[in-house]
Amino acid sequence: MLRELVAAAGERSFLALSGGLPPPEAFPVEALRAAAARVLDAGALQYAPTEGDPALLALIGAPNALVTTGSQQALDLLAKVLLDPGDVAVVESPAYVGALRALAAYEPRFVGVPVDADGMDTARLEALLVGGLRPKLCYVVANFSNPSGATLAFERRVHLAALSERYGFVVIEDDPYAALRFSGDDVPTIASCGGNVVYLGSYSKVIAPGLRVGYAIAPEWLARPLAIAKQATDLTSSSVDQRLVAELVRDTMWFDAHVARLCELYAKRAAALVGSLDDRLAASMPAGGMFVWASITVPGIDAQALTAACMAQDVAIVPGMEFAVDGGFEREVRLSFSQLRVDDLAEAGRRIGSAFDVLG
Amino acid sequence: MLRELVAAAGERSFLALSGGLPPPEAFPVEALRAAAARVLDAGALQYAPTEGDPALLALIGAPNALVTTGSQQALDLLAKVLLDPGDVAVVESPAYVGALRALAAYEPRFVGVPVDADGMDTARLEALLVGGLRPKLCYVVANFSNPSGATLAFERRVHLAALSERYGFVVIEDDPYAALRFSGDDVPTIASCGGNVVYLGSYSKVIAPGLRVGYAIAPEWLARPLAIAKQATDLTSSSVDQRLVAELVRDTMWFDAHVARLCELYAKRAAALVGSLDDRLAASMPAGGMFVWASITVPGIDAQALTAACMAQDVAIVPGMEFAVDGGFEREVRLSFSQLRVDDLAEAGRRIGSAFDVLG
Repeated sequence: MLRELVAAAGERSFLALSGGLPPPEAFPVEALRAAAARVLDAGALQYAPTEGDPALLALIGAPNALVTTGSQQALDLLAKVLLDPGDVAVVESPAYVGALRALAAYEPRFVGVPVDADGMDTARLEALLVGGLRPKLCYVVANFSNPSGATLAFERRVHLAALSERYGFVVIEDDPYAALRFSGDDVPTIASCGGNVVYLGSYSKVIAPGLRVGYAIAPEWLARPLAIAKQATDLTSSSVDQRLVAELVRDTMWFDAHVARLCELYAKRAAALVGSLDDRLAASMPAGGMFVWASITVPGIDAQALTAACMAQDVAIVPGMEFAVDGGFEREVRLSFSQLRVDDLAEAGRRIGSAFDVLG
Repeated sequence: MLRELVAAAGERSFLALSGGLPPPEAFPVEALRAAAARVLDAGALQYAPTEGDPALLALIGAPNALVTTGSQQALDLLAKVLLDPGDVAVVESPAYVGALRALAAYEPRFVGVPVDADGMDTARLEALLVGGLRPKLCYVVANFSNPSGATLAFERRVHLAALSERYGFVVIEDDPYAALRFSGDDVPTIASCGGNVVYLGSYSKVIAPGLRVGYAIAPEWLARPLAIAKQATDLTSSSVDQRLVAELVRDTMWFDAHVARLCELYAKRAAALVGSLDDRLAASMPAGGMFVWASITVPGIDAQALTAACMAQDVAIVPGMEFAVDGGFEREVRLSFSQLRVDDLAEAGRRIGSAFDVLG
């Protein structure tokens, strides 16, 4: 009753489970201020080399690395270099919308391969390849994928790397959430399994997205074309942002502790959200990242209806169809636990329950 | 004799007239440090809206503005939106190489229109249009062009704007050097003359290129496609960089004084360089910017030979052919006065004289 009254008075806060942003309280503001006081000199204000600031590249510590204006730019550059109109781009189904947008500008034909609890079904991909599919690239978020939350199993990583070698396509391993693991053990990267893999790292989720700093580690044959495309596209990423990131990452004691704090924050939030859902929305606890992919178990209610009913309860969720490559996901929704505090997540879960109540 | 001895000892410094970078002493390091202490908060660390940080957009003060990762990115986005392979892109002849690179990724057919002391010869362009040429875009650096140093005359700006309207192409008015005028009066922008004009501004030359902040002001019909392309390409430019720029630009008293200091710096350097050249290399004093476009007057010496002879004298210059769209400029060279101090510029001029001496 109280809640309804508050809502009527327009005071009930709107709760967004729809975004995938890190929350402001996760940003290392003080560390960045201190870093700025140290690194802002004339050297930090000149164009950086196209490949990236040498100090940051040294910390990335891989040959053939290219610093990008966020991982999003790496996707754009890879598409620019690899895709001609009509070429096949394999993506997870459901897929990260931002990647679809980056690739779509180069007019590929998207082929979705289903994702289960162990990530992309690489056996299914192999069947398509055996059947004649010849993709130019295969895009996967191997850890805590957006939107599925799934992590690609080790055997599938080995399999995917081998397929990329055998069938001559490039795997784009987009890995922005890797450090945000709060249970289980790290799985070796696809790139470490051999094959034709470009690894994309990002500091957006572990430091701050307002600094646009990501990187691509490419096979040697691809590194030079990528750097040339980068130069044509924006010459170089912000030197200031790169220096700030390098200054924070270089202090490994601080950085590890910071990441541990983030993992603790997200673990609590994930538990609060999943714990607040009743069995009308089936969701399992993710092992990291920012997303829960949940299935509606009540007959006759689809994601569109649930999303609208949630909106009426001042909760934003994203219907699964938004992540579809070729239809489907009418009964799934994506919930992000990254931006709300534990109390608000519990309240969001209650409101989702109310939305189900209204839908009957 | 002394100079030769010093050179033999490897102590003579190498003098680069080849770059087009602002020098470190032009960067407002202290102002940026102070700004960083003020603006680095959680808000500055989140993704900015794709169109740009609201505070910076307010200072730009134009409708349909889009903040870009330097002007280079605006070129990439415009090409992405406007060009299909084989489309005609009109450029100045000689042309800015970075623009050619950005556009070339989209496989246009370049058509160069000659530049004289008043910039692009728009009568020549009109003749081509009357003859059936149908460009998608026309790229010009209207103030103190790179490499020609020329400024497009007002009548030609009016003419070009009218042509863009009549023949349905987009003028890209790239204007990074506008504020760096050290003689004569400002000329109204092409965009202010009507027509289909996208105006590109940049803070790289007046604040620092290590902050990657430029902007595009587009006709209304083009603003939305550009923003969508921007989102697909890098989501948004650095929030931190945008806030830093906004913080400096907002203080108009400081900013105007800073720009006045830059103009004084560049005016002295331009005078030192031009004054150091003898009549074997004809160059006139530019009215702003960073470049002198000079012509070899000695029969039998071409730009390639002079460049090589200068290199032997530890001076780097750029032969005109580097800026050619379809041949030519074998007797021109580009000299930049932005990066060297007055004494070094005088010395560079003397060494160019020695290079001519060696060539006979």
